Amino acid sequence: MIRYMAALMGGLLLTAPAFALDEIVEKKSFTLTDFQTQGGETIPEMTLGYETYGTLNEAKDNAILITHFFSGNSHAAGKYAEGDAAPGYWDAIIGPGKPIDTDRYFVVSADTPVNLAAKSPTVITTGPATVNPATGKPWGMDFPILTIGDFVETQRGLMEQLGIEKWHAVMGPSMGGLQAYDWAARHPDKLTRVIPVIASGWADADLIAWLDIWGAPVRLDPNWNGGDYYKGTPPDAGLAQALKIVTLHANSAEWTNGTFGRDWAEEDADPAAAMENEFAVVKTLNDGGAARAATSDANHLLYLIRANQLFVAGGAGGESLYDGLKAIDVPTMLIHTDEDLVFSGNAVRETAAIIRSDGTPVEVVELEGTRGHLDGVLNIAQAGEQIRAFLDRELTQ
Amino acid sequence: MIRYMAALMGGLLLTAPAFALDEIVEKKSFTLTDFQTQGGETIPEMTLGYETYGTLNEAKDNAILITHFFSGNSHAAGKYAEGDAAPGYWDAIIGPGKPIDTDRYFVVSADTPVNLAAKSPTVITTGPATVNPATGKPWGMDFPILTIGDFVETQRGLMEQLGIEKWHAVMGPSMGGLQAYDWAARHPDKLTRVIPVIASGWADADLIAWLDIWGAPVRLDPNWNGGDYYKGTPPDAGLAQALKIVTLHANSAEWTNGTFGRDWAEEDADPAAAMENEFAVVKTLNDGGAARAATSDANHLLYLIRANQLFVAGGAGGESLYDGLKAIDVPTMLIHTDEDLVFSGNAVRETAAIIRSDGTPVEVVELEGTRGHLDGVLNIAQAGEQIRAFLDRELTQ
Repeated sequence: MIRYMAALMGGLLLTAPAFALDEIVEKKSFTLTDFQTQGGETIPEMTLGYETYGTLNEAKDNAILITHFFSGNSHAAGKYAEGDAAPGYWDAIIGPGKPIDTDRYFVVSADTPVNLAAKSPTVITTGPATVNPATGKPWGMDFPILTIGDFVETQRGLMEQLGIEKWHAVMGPSMGGLQAYDWAARHPDKLTRVIPVIASGWADADLIAWLDIWGAPVRLDPNWNGGDYYKGTPPDAGLAQALKIVTLHANSAEWTNGTFGRDWAEEDADPAAAMENEFAVVKTLNDGGAARAATSDANHLLYLIRANQLFVAGGAGGESLYDGLKAIDVPTMLIHTDEDLVFSGNAVRETAAIIRSDGTPVEVVELEGTRGHLDGVLNIAQAGEQIRAFLDRELTQ
Repeated sequence: MIRYMAALMGGLLLTAPAFALDEIVEKKSFTLTDFQTQGGETIPEMTLGYETYGTLNEAKDNAILITHFFSGNSHAAGKYAEGDAAPGYWDAIIGPGKPIDTDRYFVVSADTPVNLAAKSPTVITTGPATVNPATGKPWGMDFPILTIGDFVETQRGLMEQLGIEKWHAVMGPSMGGLQAYDWAARHPDKLTRVIPVIASGWADADLIAWLDIWGAPVRLDPNWNGGDYYKGTPPDAGLAQALKIVTLHANSAEWTNGTFGRDWAEEDADPAAAMENEFAVVKTLNDGGAARAATSDANHLLYLIRANQLFVAGGAGGESLYDGLKAIDVPTMLIHTDEDLVFSGNAVRETAAIIRSDGTPVEVVELEGTRGHLDGVLNIAQAGEQIRAFLDRELTQ
């Protein structure tokens, strides 16, 4: 089992790259009061975590915003302590001398609202599991529905607090890529370039349906209780199954087949002999889901799902699905892989074509790899030199 | 909503082809007593449904066996009554003058054991929902685990009862393709050719894991109660969610995106306004899952999943995964599509290479279409003339 767990951890916690960010990083937090959601609701206190790497220059024009993926958080690079098993998820490309060179750029990364890992000691978020100051109890399903646009506005709040007027770039993988598109569509004057990674410009019907399937196990768990479980037992069984689907969907057949084959979970427990005997791939996914459930919140998962389902770059209010993408006027680099089961190559290419249609320069970088969607996290170093060149390019505008 | 339901029905119940089988067909049944499973258990009475189309000739050498898919049954062609909404699933290629020409061939199609639609009036099956004659109560999870090989042995029992010594061909889509491979691997002297459609020669880790995800919602439904629900309320909520996953997985992004886009389920119920407001694609999948759950049995689903997970052509007992495929010596035609999310193009091509490795002739036919895995059912007519030529070819052996 040890090799299987190591394989899974390779997908969830990531492995240490050759050169880690030298500095020890710390999670900080910021608070926005009376945060107005896109849906017209008010959240009296929105407190979120963030991390920074490198130094903001005097002109405050060297800041890069990194936006995180669905089950991730702001820990994009470095370690909290020397003994940490692994650094942040994009450490391979963020650090001194690396493509996102912290000797040159000031990197900012923020936890989203309704972050999945609400129970993790290194995540600071506000969502259904947070106490509503008006009632003294967790918000639960009374928490306002948020959009990717709301996530962007929390980052704009942080930007103001840091005194930054324009990002040198906004970039992130998967749900982080959605935030990157949204930044460029909503605030074209607040960034000079954008790099959405393993993401397309809107949630299509297929993604909407699969996201719903991710959440179904939570709703079936009787402990979910319509979202009202903060005084009782949380729906961890359903949450574990939900997170299992996320892991499998974000991976690839090369990974499952290459790692597990048709091995049984236990040598003397043939799956042909009893229904409770499992194949190794299933046992490992179950164990991984249960481990992740322990630091996650089920309602936060459902809110994240809805935010992703609602996503259309620039918001869904325009006349056309394409209005937001056409509003993107800064140089754009899209990084993706055709082996991605979550955001298909076709969806990314269509997105590129729409942004490009009014003359905006778009570069598309294809990743090679065996991990499907996750290659945008695990194998991002492949695109390192293209990212470096894109970031360092002088723009005449 | 009408156009959405029609779209879904197109996937589940199929649409009427241009020329339906003229004759009205009827579901018959056959019984095997003291059926011995591959796992060494005995099922005192195994009663299953079957249908036939065309006429068995005197030499009894014109019989073709059609094996059905995971959520299908033996209704492969024709109608039970003039007013039926749709004929059997492969009616497009089975009938007088069609590629599987019933003027020439005698077509046999049998319900599998542990058939999903245990509650359907037109399915006859034996499984956990069947009363165990030894106890007078439904078997529940005491029913023996079955394999695809067991399904094949039930069909061999029917073959004997019909007095057939050799099938002219065995063919079927998806799980029916697994049965076709297994027939050729286990009983190379009992058929002259084989046509596995949208299926590969073994269940790999990826399929094993996805099949587990299909079943997870059932196990989470408290009404499942460890499989003991026949006296109480069945786990229809979990079963509906499970069948929803099956439908989505067997389809394609072209279908979801082309049919539903980002439409809401109800015009005045914005998914951004309330968590219970759904997108059209989700509502349609939910409704379809619930409709299918009404005629399905949750334990049967879990037994089908296990049978598919256990599948290795010829059985998993050999030294190599490939032994069974190498035992296939009859001319083989594989029909598949690269847009298939359940059985990938790579898995089918690898299967073809292994069968071909010892000189067995293998033809591969690629389907074009927009329905993913389901194209092997919905668009099989595309391969009609290749099937006809393959069936009609004189073999020198």
